[in-house]
Amino acid sequence: MTAIATTQPRAALTDDARAELTALLGDRFSISGPVRDHHGKDESYHTPCPPDGVAFARSTEEVSAIVTICAKHKLPIIPFGTGTSLEGGIAALHGGITIDLSGMDRILRVSPEDLDVTVQAGVTRKRLNEHLRDTGLFFPIDPGADASLGGMAATRASGTNAVRYGTMRENVLGLTVVLADGRIIKTGGRARKSAAGYDLTRLFVGSEGTLGIITEVTLKLYGIPEAISSAVCAFQDIRGAVNTVIQTIQVGIPVARIELLDEVQMDAVNKYSKLSYAVAPTLFFEFHGTAAGVQEQAEMAAAIAQEHGGMEFAWATRPEDRSRLWQARHDGYYAALALRPGSKGWPTDVCVPISRLADCILETKKDLAESNMLAPMVGHVGDGNFHLVYVIDPDKPEEMAEAQRLNDRMVSRALAMGGTCTGEHGIGYGKMAFLEQEAGDAFAVMGDVKRALDPHNLLNPGKVVRV
Amino acid sequence: MTAIATTQPRAALTDDARAELTALLGDRFSISGPVRDHHGKDESYHTPCPPDGVAFARSTEEVSAIVTICAKHKLPIIPFGTGTSLEGGIAALHGGITIDLSGMDRILRVSPEDLDVTVQAGVTRKRLNEHLRDTGLFFPIDPGADASLGGMAATRASGTNAVRYGTMRENVLGLTVVLADGRIIKTGGRARKSAAGYDLTRLFVGSEGTLGIITEVTLKLYGIPEAISSAVCAFQDIRGAVNTVIQTIQVGIPVARIELLDEVQMDAVNKYSKLSYAVAPTLFFEFHGTAAGVQEQAEMAAAIAQEHGGMEFAWATRPEDRSRLWQARHDGYYAALALRPGSKGWPTDVCVPISRLADCILETKKDLAESNMLAPMVGHVGDGNFHLVYVIDPDKPEEMAEAQRLNDRMVSRALAMGGTCTGEHGIGYGKMAFLEQEAGDAFAVMGDVKRALDPHNLLNPGKVVRV
Repeated sequence: MTAIATTQPRAALTDDARAELTALLGDRFSISGPVRDHHGKDESYHTPCPPDGVAFARSTEEVSAIVTICAKHKLPIIPFGTGTSLEGGIAALHGGITIDLSGMDRILRVSPEDLDVTVQAGVTRKRLNEHLRDTGLFFPIDPGADASLGGMAATRASGTNAVRYGTMRENVLGLTVVLADGRIIKTGGRARKSAAGYDLTRLFVGSEGTLGIITEVTLKLYGIPEAISSAVCAFQDIRGAVNTVIQTIQVGIPVARIELLDEVQMDAVNKYSKLSYAVAPTLFFEFHGTAAGVQEQAEMAAAIAQEHGGMEFAWATRPEDRSRLWQARHDGYYAALALRPGSKGWPTDVCVPISRLADCILETKKDLAESNMLAPMVGHVGDGNFHLVYVIDPDKPEEMAEAQRLNDRMVSRALAMGGTCTGEHGIGYGKMAFLEQEAGDAFAVMGDVKRALDPHNLLNPGKVVRV
Repeated sequence: MTAIATTQPRAALTDDARAELTALLGDRFSISGPVRDHHGKDESYHTPCPPDGVAFARSTEEVSAIVTICAKHKLPIIPFGTGTSLEGGIAALHGGITIDLSGMDRILRVSPEDLDVTVQAGVTRKRLNEHLRDTGLFFPIDPGADASLGGMAATRASGTNAVRYGTMRENVLGLTVVLADGRIIKTGGRARKSAAGYDLTRLFVGSEGTLGIITEVTLKLYGIPEAISSAVCAFQDIRGAVNTVIQTIQVGIPVARIELLDEVQMDAVNKYSKLSYAVAPTLFFEFHGTAAGVQEQAEMAAAIAQEHGGMEFAWATRPEDRSRLWQARHDGYYAALALRPGSKGWPTDVCVPISRLADCILETKKDLAESNMLAPMVGHVGDGNFHLVYVIDPDKPEEMAEAQRLNDRMVSRALAMGGTCTGEHGIGYGKMAFLEQEAGDAFAVMGDVKRALDPHNLLNPGKVVRV
């Protein structure tokens, strides 16, 4: 359905290349249809686009060997973690080989005394947190999906906790990266700060596999807070909910999570997760700190909510209640799709300066009210970041066109307000035109960097930048 | 004194180039000896190396025009803020033109509701904070010197507050940058987070003028805490002081500042700032938060200090007492130099994972004890970052050699412990060999990026990377 603009021809997987990859990997190199199909589709509306083969890597050295073979044969290389990208990031637009990193699932080092950890790229965030359970530490970044940490680094993931703990940008200390010619480098390190040279770590974080293949990630960890407290608060209208968020941030309450779900999304959540929340714009809060600190934060936030038409805070104090609450929030995407069986989701997100958040959300809701599009809204609103899911039938061109029209308007609105075309979903190939609009002349500089590091355009070609 | 290894010849300022720069800037282009000399030396031991001319710019467009002229004539271009670099960052190693940005001193926009600000590159941190005084906001990054915010971005500055508020890496939202060919780009933006394309902002932050000239900076701001409290605590030995720091960080006390001064530095501070602290290893603390939060933090930290041989906390509660305390800390460098009139300072810093901090400091102190080198130690130890100043006569080769030997050992020690060759002073040309050692094969990638953005090696040549 989605138009893929490209002039680059599709590379052919020659017999020679196939033989070399099979010699290296044995049956961990696959050209079977189902395996290729599985690796060609993400969680979004984008048309599946399978690679010509899938290489299952187990080590950095193996990734390097695979890339070296691909470079020799000029085959595109697409890294794959858990396939939860939302903008077509894993589509093999020009053919080539997908490197599946899920087998690189070892936790290489945990240093509780330094609050850091090094993992292979295929370790997922949930598995890391399970592994850490006995240390009293946790890794906070939580994009909802149980994504791989390599994929999260590559896409600069964030999620519900970012308002307090930052995104992958702030939480990756160092990387091991395989370059386009197979060289292995390490970036960053374990020092908490450094003024030593170019920040290659941050250059690879968010580059979506177009500059190198991330194979190992060193991450900051945090002590599990002494006290955690979650609450749900429904509002009379969405303006009151958003203004509560704005004021909470402006007065500096160090809220750990502050999530907005509009009335459409709350209806979906109730149905999908068998809950009985009010069908009204709602904020989900979480507070982390000492017992006294959490109480102080919660009282301040509750007072602000009350001023803006918020109802009573409904507290979830037991861990299992908190888990249920956040699981319901995380299942929001699937809940949205379940509103219309057989549909697909076109998830999209923007992020604006917090002072413009109410305007951006209200104007977007007005657009939706004037359309027949089903599109629940959720948001990591403490960062100024919110999401829509256009719930569509991608086989109906008129629905695709309407989603495109609404999306164009929302992104343009966010950019006009000083915001960004994506707070956390990334560019892939779905938002490349928006990135060009947002970055202006800096878009060409991104292309210069790409050509310098990947002169033959082999790394995830067709994504993020034009070359 | 310092050997400058280079094969690139010194560029000549031709009559044509001079005429074009004068036509553009009038008497804001200077070739006078004193002006050139002033722009050729920083605050360190590095041999002064003046440019052939100094251009005083007032706007981004003017910087672009200057760079365009320099590019045409293949003249090196060195950006200059306040000249407080410590690794020779502003030395005109290959001749060329220094662009003095101190006249770009306008605060372009303050958005209290978004907690952000955009300034021209020449605005200093103190002037920004004076300007913000009535808004209830402040900009926390504080490297000691009243540096320009453009320079602080270009060198990824940090300082005493970084343990809580992060460094320039975490606090720059966006930049305006003039590229090597005169093009003007904007990077980043005002959204708190973004997954839109390569993180060019972080690429320019810390690039020390070698990839582009930063002309405008958008920064995060913070609410002035409801309560601030500072304290000084002397220790029986340095191990106790360092272990207090380690434990304070490990248990997650959100201390705003935690600074170590060794007994040599305390003696210097007492003499220079006419104070009467104990001549013993000492921690300076600062706590930010609500009144209750600050009290809680302070009690926890005091208990940890007591366990490790700390004396009573001496509190500075009045703002003027706090200012005096931190001014004394910030004057530490000048206090060190005053221990030996006529001397120069060779300031250096490393940063290690916090668990290695005690070993790194104690081994370094042992080296110093076995040498005759006067070298006070201070540190932003909450980050694992500490500094020495070798107080030397740079005209005595044996003193330079001894400083070099001690420095080589300290940096090698930090690297062996998983640390970095500089936590915040930067590379300039003084630490290029250490960067190469630290980065390994990634050093070549930095060169690739440099060549892509500055193919004729005109931007601050001879610094950070080899080309």
